Amino acid sequence: MPNPDLLETFPTPTDNEFVIEHVNEEFTSVCPVTGHPDFGEIVVRFSPRSAAAGGVCVELKSLKLYFQSFRQEGIYYEAVTNTIRDDLAKAMEPTWLQVITRWRGRGGIRSIIRAAHGTIPAEWHRQ
Amino acid sequence: MPNPDLLETFPTPTDNEFVIEHVNEEFTSVCPVTGHPDFGEIVVRFSPRSAAAGGVCVELKSLKLYFQSFRQEGIYYEAVTNTIRDDLAKAMEPTWLQVITRWRGRGGIRSIIRAAHGTIPAEWHRQ
Amino acid sequence: MPNPDLLETFPTPTDNEFVIEHVNEEFTSVCPVTGHPDFGEIVVRFSPRSAAAGGVCVELKSLKLYFQSFRQEGIYYEAVTNTIRDDLAKAMEPTWLQVITRWRGRGGIRSIIRAAHGTIPAEWHRQ
Amino acid sequence: MPNPDLLETFPTPTDNEFVIEHVNEEFTSVCPVTGHPDFGEIVVRFSPRSAAAGGVCVELKSLKLYFQSFRQEGIYYEAVTNTIRDDLAKAMEPTWLQVITRWRGRGGIRSIIRAAHGTIPAEWHRQ
Amino acid sequence: MPNPDLLETFPTPTDNEFVIEHVNEEFTSVCPVTGHPDFGEIVVRFSPRSAAAGGVCVELKSLKLYFQSFRQEGIYYEAVTNTIRDDLAKAMEPTWLQVITRWRGRGGIRSIIRAAHGTIPAEWHRQ
Amino acid sequence: MPNPDLLETFPTPTDNEFVIEHVNEEFTSVCPVTGHPDFGEIVVRFSPRSAAAGGVCVELKSLKLYFQSFRQEGIYYEAVTNTIRDDLAKAMEPTWLQVITRWRGRGGIRSIIRAAHGTIPAEWHRQ
Amino acid sequence: MPNPDLLETFPTPTDNEFVIEHVNEEFTSVCPVTGHPDFGEIVVRFSPRSAAAGGVCVELKSLKLYFQSFRQEGIYYEAVTNTIRDDLAKAMEPTWLQVITRWRGRGGIRSIIRAAHGTIPAEWHRQ
Amino acid sequence: MPNPDLLETFPTPTDNEFVIEHVNEEFTSVCPVTGHPDFGEIVVRFSPRSAAAGGVCVELKSLKLYFQSFRQEGIYYEAVTNTIRDDLAKAMEPTWLQVITRWRGRGGIRSIIRAAHGTIPAEWHRQ
Amino acid sequence: MPNPDLLETFPTPTDNEFVIEHVNEEFTSVCPVTGHPDFGEIVVRFSPRSAAAGGVCVELKSLKLYFQSFRQEGIYYEAVTNTIRDDLAKAMEPTWLQVITRWRGRGGIRSIIRAAHGTIPAEWHRQ
Amino acid sequence: MPNPDLLETFPTPTDNEFVIEHVNEEFTSVCPVTGHPDFGEIVVRFSPRSAAAGGVCVELKSLKLYFQSFRQEGIYYEAVTNTIRDDLAKAMEPTWLQVITRWRGRGGIRSIIRAAHGTIPAEWHRQ
Repeated sequence: MPNPDLLETFPTPTDNEFVIEHVNEEFTSVCPVTGHPDFGEIVVRFSPRSAAAGGVCVELKSLKLYFQSFRQEGIYYEAVTNTIRDDLAKAMEPTWLQVITRWRGRGGIRSIIRAAHGTIPAEWHRQ
Repeated sequence: MPNPDLLETFPTPTDNEFVIEHVNEEFTSVCPVTGHPDFGEIVVRFSPRSAAAGGVCVELKSLKLYFQSFRQEGIYYEAVTNTIRDDLAKAMEPTWLQVITRWRGRGGIRSIIRAAHGTIPAEWHRQ
Repeated sequence: MPNPDLLETFPTPTDNEFVIEHVNEEFTSVCPVTGHPDFGEIVVRFSPRSAAAGGVCVELKSLKLYFQSFRQEGIYYEAVTNTIRDDLAKAMEPTWLQVITRWRGRGGIRSIIRAAHGTIPAEWHRQ
Repeated sequence: MPNPDLLETFPTPTDNEFVIEHVNEEFTSVCPVTGHPDFGEIVVRFSPRSAAAGGVCVELKSLKLYFQSFRQEGIYYEAVTNTIRDDLAKAMEPTWLQVITRWRGRGGIRSIIRAAHGTIPAEWHRQ
Repeated sequence: MPNPDLLETFPTPTDNEFVIEHVNEEFTSVCPVTGHPDFGEIVVRFSPRSAAAGGVCVELKSLKLYFQSFRQEGIYYEAVTNTIRDDLAKAMEPTWLQVITRWRGRGGIRSIIRAAHGTIPAEWHRQ
Repeated sequence: MPNPDLLETFPTPTDNEFVIEHVNEEFTSVCPVTGHPDFGEIVVRFSPRSAAAGGVCVELKSLKLYFQSFRQEGIYYEAVTNTIRDDLAKAMEPTWLQVITRWRGRGGIRSIIRAAHGTIPAEWHRQ
Repeated sequence: MPNPDLLETFPTPTDNEFVIEHVNEEFTSVCPVTGHPDFGEIVVRFSPRSAAAGGVCVELKSLKLYFQSFRQEGIYYEAVTNTIRDDLAKAMEPTWLQVITRWRGRGGIRSIIRAAHGTIPAEWHRQ
Repeated sequence: MPNPDLLETFPTPTDNEFVIEHVNEEFTSVCPVTGHPDFGEIVVRFSPRSAAAGGVCVELKSLKLYFQSFRQEGIYYEAVTNTIRDDLAKAMEPTWLQVITRWRGRGGIRSIIRAAHGTIPAEWHRQ
Repeated sequence: MPNPDLLETFPTPTDNEFVIEHVNEEFTSVCPVTGHPDFGEIVVRFSPRSAAAGGVCVELKSLKLYFQSFRQEGIYYEAVTNTIRDDLAKAMEPTWLQVITRWRGRGGIRSIIRAAHGTIPAEWHRQ
Repeated sequence: MPNPDLLETFPTPTDNEFVIEHVNEEFTSVCPVTGHPDFGEIVVRFSPRSAAAGGVCVELKSLKLYFQSFRQEGIYYEAVTNTIRDDLAKAMEPTWLQVITRWRGRGGIRSIIRAAHGTIPAEWHRQ
């Protein structure tokens, strides 16, 4: 069962705005309608609050375990995407958060879901 | 016969604006002029209304069955595209919906049709 | 001889603005100077008027036959491009029409011709 | 010797603005310093004046012969580019003309020269 | 242990604004949670102050040694990125500095971190 | 030793603004710290003043010999870039000049340096 | 229903051995277990008997109609492959026949089936 | 109408065995069943007899005109392939000849036909 | 006029068998039928006799000048290929020589000619 | 001046046959005819004798310095290739050695030279 308690954080190392991106290419959950496994890629991008404001970053191993907690869960793509956004937003209260999920084909249909929270930082646009 | 009654929905899991994209690479219908089969790819993108506003998402297996209901239908590319847009717009009343159909060559001509409904969400542009 | 009477249309299925693209990769005509065959690709993009306004779409098989009517015609690239634009503009009176022709090399020179009519619809830019 | 008298034109087939691009991948001239052959690609893009204004297009075979007239000429890249621009501008008096020459390496250095004349038509930007 | 004292600089050779980019594809540090090695690519971009203003550039070999000083350090991706930004900003006081770190997968998750300092110079946008 | 006296010029063939790009993929100099050879690619872009204003272009063979004069020179990347900019700016007094140097890896770090002089011509942006 | 009576042939035009390959990228049938459509690519290669021996080739349009006769048939991949081989072998009695079917993914699994009849001609090996 | 009288030859320049390959990417004929145009690519490979034995090569412009003579001919792919083989074999009596024709899709099916004559020369295998 | 006297050689530096390959991507001659220029790529591969046996290698600059001597020559592709083979075989008497010429399209047909002399060395096969 | 005394070796760590490949992408020497610099890539592959037989491997930094000793040498491609083979063969007495040099274009001609010594090990063929 998706378990946000698995998410651990550590204090952001700076007062400066910066951007973090984690890409998990090995995500799997279960289709709530057919019971068959779904396979997808999860992209998480966020900008933590400043250290002075108590900003935190999600710890990578805990993020992996959190993603693994979806393995036996019967859950829609749309709920996976929004659950991850909500759990990470709650755990980190970042100034910006974006979650993109890309799913391999099921019944000949492949899907991409995008959700976000907060304001895109200037650094992201500078790319 | 294209059957919009096959379309089932489930409540959107969030009040936040987000974007869903489904790509069906295995669409087939029949040419109304020659009676020969047409083969194409259907891209559907939409943003559901918020949960508070009763927003819904199309259920993926029902979408597959809906697409399969075109299999024996004699119908123009242009009508396929607009029918899908109209049926999905009616079933979901999303804030944004875009339908793009790409058709394999017939008589040496390949075609792409684009139709839309509503307002593109900010998240789509942020990409 | 290029024959616009071959062009048939059918009523657009909607009052909504949408965009249609047909790509013919098997076009051939004859060079008016040397008498040798020319080979090219024709891209046609257009947006029909609304159904309420009597908008129509060109029928695909008739478009194929129209393109084939250039097969023995001695005609410049520039005239092919503008003739197709003029014939399709007359047959459909679309709100937007774009014709791009790409020609294989002749004498070591390959050519691309672009012509248009009307106003680009918003949906095209949204892509 | 570069011979602009080889350039022949024919009346533009329309009063509409449109854009023509010719790419010659088989251009050769001679280096005026070393006497060794140079090899390059010539891109010519232009928009003729309207038919009502007496607009003309360069005829393709004559353009090929004009390019071939540089074969034995000792001439700098920069002069090739500007000579082609000047000769075509004079022969066609187009509303827009762009000449880009890309040269294979000589002494380990490869070069690209760009020159233009007139105003870029809207159709070119629409691409 | 990351050692900023390893960083050496030399006077910028000009009063003109210019942009320098160093890419280290062979960076390695240690995960502070698991003790396993991390491998990544570090991109550093900066614009030094003018020579008249006492501007300096980081010397390349000293930068290499500085990067190597992270080899045995247990440190988060986020801290690596911000430490490099802070150490380089202090050593050079450049008008602009950008640090991007791209990390190979760990537990199926790959990460990218971006941080910056100062104002992007015009030359960078001119590209 | 870098020798700007090797640079020869010839009068620009036109009063029109145009843009010239030379790419040398075979540049080598020596690292002033380690004494080991450096290998890089030099991109030079410029727009000469008009012929009426006495504008000149750098002659290609002389440019090659000028680049070769760095072969045994112990010199930083940053100085190579600015020296080339300064020497070419002095020799040609162009309206615009851009120098980009891309260096192969040394100690696992590869570098790109950009410097410029004057105002970017409109033709460059039109591309 | 797969209908071999749709297959028409014409006499081979030669006594020489030669090889014919037809690739249908638009094949669809129905899964006999789930009732869902299957999509695949069919490759048919054969060498007809000599004209003197009454050799025949399958006519292309009839082959297309034959393939289309599988459209509503509930049939395993393996049976599709062998039915096509048997029907074509009976219709043409070729000296060699090879059928390869490649199927798009279903439940995350994609399949390739190969079947043959007769002796591979020397010309095929010569490739 | 396919006209082998258009084929002209010239004496092979050597007594040595060598191999010639001509690829025509602009072949078109007409489908004898539907009357629609077919488009394909023709590959011709051959090895002439020695000069001492009176060997000849097909002249390239005459080969082009010969290929163009199929333009209005209603003819099967198989007959195109064997006709070209037979006509070239008769015109040149080469020691080896191979004809491969690749046809663009028609009704969703694309085809490749291979025919040969004589013995593959050692040089071809050496490749 | 093709001038084999331009070819200069120097003694092979070894008694060991080895293989040399020169690729000229800037070859041009003239079509003897139409008078238009031909453009091609020439690949020369050879293995010199041993130094003890008086083996020689062709000098690269002289090879360039020899290739340039075809610039104004009206000559068939087949004769270019065999002339180069014969001239190089005479100048070097190598143990193996292979000449491959690849020609850009003319009249929609592109060509490849292969000729050889002597015995392929073992080292080439080892590749 | 090429200096084989720079080559240092160390004992092979095993009695087993194995294969080592070093690729130097930054080689430069000088053309003995024109005095201009040459740039190339050197591939060295070898199999040392067994440890029991006193087998050695070339030390990598010494190999770099050896390659750098060609920097000011006027020397043919063929001599570079054979000199490296001879010097490495003498320094290591390996059971197999292969040297391949690939040279950037000069006068429009790029070259590849291959030389070898000894017997290819079985492991290499397994590749």
